[in-house]
Amino acid sequence: MKFKKILTIGVSESSLGSKYWNRLDDLTEKRVSVQKDSADIKAELKDADCVLVNPFVFTFEKNLIDEAPLLKYIGVLSTAFGNVDYNHAAAKNIAVCNIPNYSTEAVAEFAFGSLLDSLRELERAKTQAKDGNYSEDTFFNTSEIKGKKFGIIGLGNIGSKMAEIALAFGADVMYWSKNRKEKLENGGIKYISVEEIVTECDIISLNLAFNKDTENFLNAVLILKIKKGAVLINLAPNELIDLNALEKRLSNGDITYIMDHSDELTSEQASELSKHKNCIIYPPIGYTTKEATIEKQEIFVGNIENFLQGSPTNKVN
Amino acid sequence: MKFKKILTIGVSESSLGSKYWNRLDDLTEKRVSVQKDSADIKAELKDADCVLVNPFVFTFEKNLIDEAPLLKYIGVLSTAFGNVDYNHAAAKNIAVCNIPNYSTEAVAEFAFGSLLDSLRELERAKTQAKDGNYSEDTFFNTSEIKGKKFGIIGLGNIGSKMAEIALAFGADVMYWSKNRKEKLENGGIKYISVEEIVTECDIISLNLAFNKDTENFLNAVLILKIKKGAVLINLAPNELIDLNALEKRLSNGDITYIMDHSDELTSEQASELSKHKNCIIYPPIGYTTKEATIEKQEIFVGNIENFLQGSPTNKVN
Repeated sequence: MKFKKILTIGVSESSLGSKYWNRLDDLTEKRVSVQKDSADIKAELKDADCVLVNPFVFTFEKNLIDEAPLLKYIGVLSTAFGNVDYNHAAAKNIAVCNIPNYSTEAVAEFAFGSLLDSLRELERAKTQAKDGNYSEDTFFNTSEIKGKKFGIIGLGNIGSKMAEIALAFGADVMYWSKNRKEKLENGGIKYISVEEIVTECDIISLNLAFNKDTENFLNAVLILKIKKGAVLINLAPNELIDLNALEKRLSNGDITYIMDHSDELTSEQASELSKHKNCIIYPPIGYTTKEATIEKQEIFVGNIENFLQGSPTNKVN
Repeated sequence: MKFKKILTIGVSESSLGSKYWNRLDDLTEKRVSVQKDSADIKAELKDADCVLVNPFVFTFEKNLIDEAPLLKYIGVLSTAFGNVDYNHAAAKNIAVCNIPNYSTEAVAEFAFGSLLDSLRELERAKTQAKDGNYSEDTFFNTSEIKGKKFGIIGLGNIGSKMAEIALAFGADVMYWSKNRKEKLENGGIKYISVEEIVTECDIISLNLAFNKDTENFLNAVLILKIKKGAVLINLAPNELIDLNALEKRLSNGDITYIMDHSDELTSEQASELSKHKNCIIYPPIGYTTKEATIEKQEIFVGNIENFLQGSPTNKVN
C-alpha cells in the first residue's frame, strides 16, 4: 500500500532529516512540498490523500480539511496537535497521528543538568578557572540533591523518569499528579498535595502538560507559599505559572526559577524575568538532543508506514 | 574522659566551623592553636596528648612526633593522611584518625553536573539567552546519557554511587576495579578490562585513589585508545593520567576532558591544558558542598569523641 500523493506543509528536509525525508519516497506515488503560506495549498489539497504538517507554523482548520476530499491521513510533526482540527478529521474518517514522548529522556536529563548547574554554580566555577583562579574558597555554600525534598508536580513520562533519577541521587522524592500512581510509589516516592509540595520541597519540578485545565496552575497563592530557598524548574510552558506572582518572589531573591520555554515569552515578560539573577533562562533546549531528534523522525515516518500497513500508531482522534 | 591538652596546628575556627570548633572545648582541659609555621610548635607539643592537624599545610614528621611524649591521638582534617608519619605513630601507640568518604555524593553529583553541562552545552545556552536569543537551532547536536556506554574505572564509594546514578539515567554501565565487586554487578553493571573501557565507552569516569600504584594509570597507550568523541571525567588527581599523551588527544579535538584538580597543576600544565576548548577545567569544587563540609566536620570531631570513649573510628594505623 502506498499513498497517491503526500503533501507536506511547512515540513522540510532539514526538519525531518535527509534519511527520513527520502524514506517518504517509498510511501507514495507522488510527493509535493509547500511552504506554510503558499497560495497553492488549497489546490494541492484536492488530490492529496496524506498531509504532513508542522503545526507550529501551520493551522489545519476545518475549512482546509474540507478542501481535501481524498484525505485519509494527517501526520503532525510534533507532540502538540491542537492546531489540527482532529475532531473534524475524525468525523470524516481521517486519522491524525502525532509524536508523543520522543523527548522524555532529553528533558529529564536537561532538568538535572540545569539543576546541578545552579546548585553547584558551574558556570561561575568555569569562568573563574578560565581566569586562572583555581581556588574553591567561594564554593562552600553549594548544595547537593541528596537528602533534599524533591517534589514533582505531574507524574507523566518525564515526571516519572525524573523521579527515578532523583531517587538514585538519594533525594526524598514526592509527587502530586491528577491521577495517583500507586505502582510507582513502590519505588519509594510519596503522594502528597500540591500545596505540601510547594511548602515543603527544596526542589520543585513542574511537569504538567499545558491545556485549559492547567493554565495558571501554579497560581499566586501557591507561588507565595513556595519554600524559601527552593529551586523551581519548569520545562513546560510558562502559562502554567502566574508570572506576576513569580516575579514578586524572584524580586525577594528567596527562590530560584529555571525555565527553557523562553521563545514563548512576550518581549515584556522576557525583559522582566531577565532582570532577576535568580531566574535562569535557557533557550528551549530541553528536547534538542540528537537522540530525541532521531526518535521524533523515526516515530513520524513509522506512524505513516504503520497506517499504510493497517495498524495505525499514535492516532489521536 | 578528656584530653589534658588539644593542640591544633593549621586548623582554624573557619576550617572547622564554629559549632564544631566550640565542641572541642568539652573534650579537653586546655586547648592551644598554632599556625603551621609557628616557632612554638615544638614547645607546645611537649604536653599535648592530642594534636589536630591540617596535613595540606603541615607535615607531621617522625622527629616532631618524638617531641610529644604524652601524645595519644592525631586527628587529620582530611581524607589524605600521607603527610603524617602514621607508621611511626603506630609504633608509639598513637592513634591517627582521618575523615574518609565524606564527599562521596558531592563528587558524584558534580560529575553528573559537569558531564551534562558539557553534553548539553548549558553555558553557551544561558549566554545566548542572556543576549536575548531564545532559539534552539544550534543545540540539536547535543547528547543524552541514556543509552551511552558509561565506563567507571575504580568502583569505590564514588564510583559505585556514580554507577547507581548512571543506571537511573539509562546508561549502559560497565566498570573495572582492582577488586571485582560481584554484588554490585547484580544491579546491572558489567565488569570489563580498562582497555575495553577506554576503547568502547562514550563516557569514562576515572575514580581511582591516587597512590604509587595508580600513578600514570591512564598511560600513553591507553589514552591513545580512548574512543573518538568520548568524554573523560577525572575528579581525582591528574597524576593518574599521562598529561602529555592527553594533550595530544586534546589537540586532535576528538575527546573531551573534564577535571577539577586544577589547583594541583603546575603553571605550565595549567597553561597547556587551558589552550584546549575541549579541556573543561574547574576549580577543585567536587567536594565543596555545604553537606559534605558538615559531614567532614562531624566525622572529625566524632572521631575524637569516639577515641575518648574507647572505640576509635577511622583509625588508619
